[in-house]
Amino acid sequence: MSTEYNPIVWKDETLYLLDQRLLPGEEHFVEVKSLKDCASAIRDMVVRGAPCIGFTAIYGMALWYKNASQPSLAMVREACDELIAARPTAVNLAYEVERCYTLIKNSQLSGKTQNEIFQELVDFGHLQTKESHDKNLRMANLGIEDLKKRIKKEKWNLMTHCNTGFLACGSLGTALGVISHAHSQGLVNHVFADETRPYMQGSRLTAFELAKENIPYSIVVEGAASYLLSHGKVDAIFVGADRIAANGDTANKVGTATLAIVANHYKIPFYVVAPTSSFDISLEDGKGIEIEMRESTEITHFRGSPVAPAGANSVNPSFDVTDHRLITGIICEKGMINPAVAGELVRIIRS
Amino acid sequence: MSTEYNPIVWKDETLYLLDQRLLPGEEHFVEVKSLKDCASAIRDMVVRGAPCIGFTAIYGMALWYKNASQPSLAMVREACDELIAARPTAVNLAYEVERCYTLIKNSQLSGKTQNEIFQELVDFGHLQTKESHDKNLRMANLGIEDLKKRIKKEKWNLMTHCNTGFLACGSLGTALGVISHAHSQGLVNHVFADETRPYMQGSRLTAFELAKENIPYSIVVEGAASYLLSHGKVDAIFVGADRIAANGDTANKVGTATLAIVANHYKIPFYVVAPTSSFDISLEDGKGIEIEMRESTEITHFRGSPVAPAGANSVNPSFDVTDHRLITGIICEKGMINPAVAGELVRIIRS
Repeated sequence: MSTEYNPIVWKDETLYLLDQRLLPGEEHFVEVKSLKDCASAIRDMVVRGAPCIGFTAIYGMALWYKNASQPSLAMVREACDELIAARPTAVNLAYEVERCYTLIKNSQLSGKTQNEIFQELVDFGHLQTKESHDKNLRMANLGIEDLKKRIKKEKWNLMTHCNTGFLACGSLGTALGVISHAHSQGLVNHVFADETRPYMQGSRLTAFELAKENIPYSIVVEGAASYLLSHGKVDAIFVGADRIAANGDTANKVGTATLAIVANHYKIPFYVVAPTSSFDISLEDGKGIEIEMRESTEITHFRGSPVAPAGANSVNPSFDVTDHRLITGIICEKGMINPAVAGELVRIIRS
Repeated sequence: MSTEYNPIVWKDETLYLLDQRLLPGEEHFVEVKSLKDCASAIRDMVVRGAPCIGFTAIYGMALWYKNASQPSLAMVREACDELIAARPTAVNLAYEVERCYTLIKNSQLSGKTQNEIFQELVDFGHLQTKESHDKNLRMANLGIEDLKKRIKKEKWNLMTHCNTGFLACGSLGTALGVISHAHSQGLVNHVFADETRPYMQGSRLTAFELAKENIPYSIVVEGAASYLLSHGKVDAIFVGADRIAANGDTANKVGTATLAIVANHYKIPFYVVAPTSSFDISLEDGKGIEIEMRESTEITHFRGSPVAPAGANSVNPSFDVTDHRLITGIICEKGMINPAVAGELVRIIRS
């Protein structure tokens, strides 16, 4: 089940990121030497997926701290803000950067040297990566346990949207981690992966991961959801999350809410799998979640060549918000939350 | 409102088809000289859209008849079957080809010459094209009339899936005909066109048509349906149909049923617009509709270059079936059918 493949490598005080924009055709690692490199890598989607963005940001802060000239707390704040601005919707980015800020502040107060603090930041990055794997394994087991109660079949047909495997999460993955772990236990018959327009995370990344783990799969277009579910081809759906509000409303890659509505229509279990770092209980519900609008050309062009008439416009929201009432269960490392039970999410998060 | 642009041209006893596979980048007409050419053009989607496939088939039969050596009725039957086999799901194709068969049979019985029958077939093609425009105009008016009762706004925001404009229907169009005609009356604020994966009919064709008619529009990915509808950006949705069963269940481009489910969830009016030639009341409901499965590479490749890992599989249903209970109204040239009223469809079709 576990793969040796790691898209984020820290080696000789340098960060190397697998350039996921070139997948699945080419496996090329980008060298990240500065905060600017790091912010660009996050902004330009060299690295993506909430957890991997978080790890990258920590190493980016470490790199910055190592090279900064007498870093005052004001300078640290500025560096943090620059990194956070690279992708404003990614709550995990802000979360990890703020933790770096606190770490630096406390260590500066206790009189540690610049190099000691740099080492602490690197160790913090390593620890987060390991803890993430352990959390993902816990979530995978929770998902499998719940699905076993609902779908009494020897092998399941599962579906997912966007990319939530080891490319996004460093190891195992969140939603795809459930699928991958279920497969390692012989519980998976077939996986349907949404191609995930416009950025094709499903075709490029999820298919790459499924193929690397020898899990039988088919890529489908988002529009095929009703076809698949009405024909009984899918037993359950697992997706990730970019941000989850206190009531369970979930922001995730555009198309997630559309899929959840179709799943609800056909009474197919629909799970969200995300570590608590993706939760933002300061938001009462999904209405407060800012939706990042991306370039029109991601839709009107393909690899630089137009697919629409010259001058065509598009509307390109990066995320959508899935109503918590459409979600069977939200699986985090602390347990499975039933969003139909008011207050359960906040109770579990605070436990 | 009406455009002079015609994608199907009959001139000097030859058929010219705009090669819609090259749109929107290139406007190239393919010369069709034989039944084989005609079947290939239909199979390979040089021409698409139920009505245009129908017109093309009639002219194809005319061409075949002109060049056949002493065409017996058995030979006619064989030619008809060859043409019908080019796209088995397109009921309009079979419908028009069978009408050609009947025309030929009757004219042969009444002793007409080969050339006379050829001319009759050509005239039949011309007549169908003109009648189609008149039907489309009637449907457009029905759609506008009904929507005026439901949405009390000066200008509407409308949405559509796949391609149903003049490129598919020769003139005006069906679902897009409603939108285009509403626009000509100053009733349209903005149109959202699904890009319509995998074949991109929305980006390539619908956007081309909307641009030609100066209708403000944005292309969106299918996954964005929930985002758009939950944000109140769409007042109503109009789609076409490839085949409609007796109870109103509607086969149309994959993604239609997915969109209908989302529309139903948000209580947005969802209309199907199709001439009665797309109805097949021999089918009790949608379960009897055969779904054409297309090449996996339409999803895994883009213009010949892979977007997924080598060896990736996909499942590529060309159509899906929208449950009649999700449809606000089915608009045909004989009136608007409320699919919630059992038997109304068959009554109107037979009227």
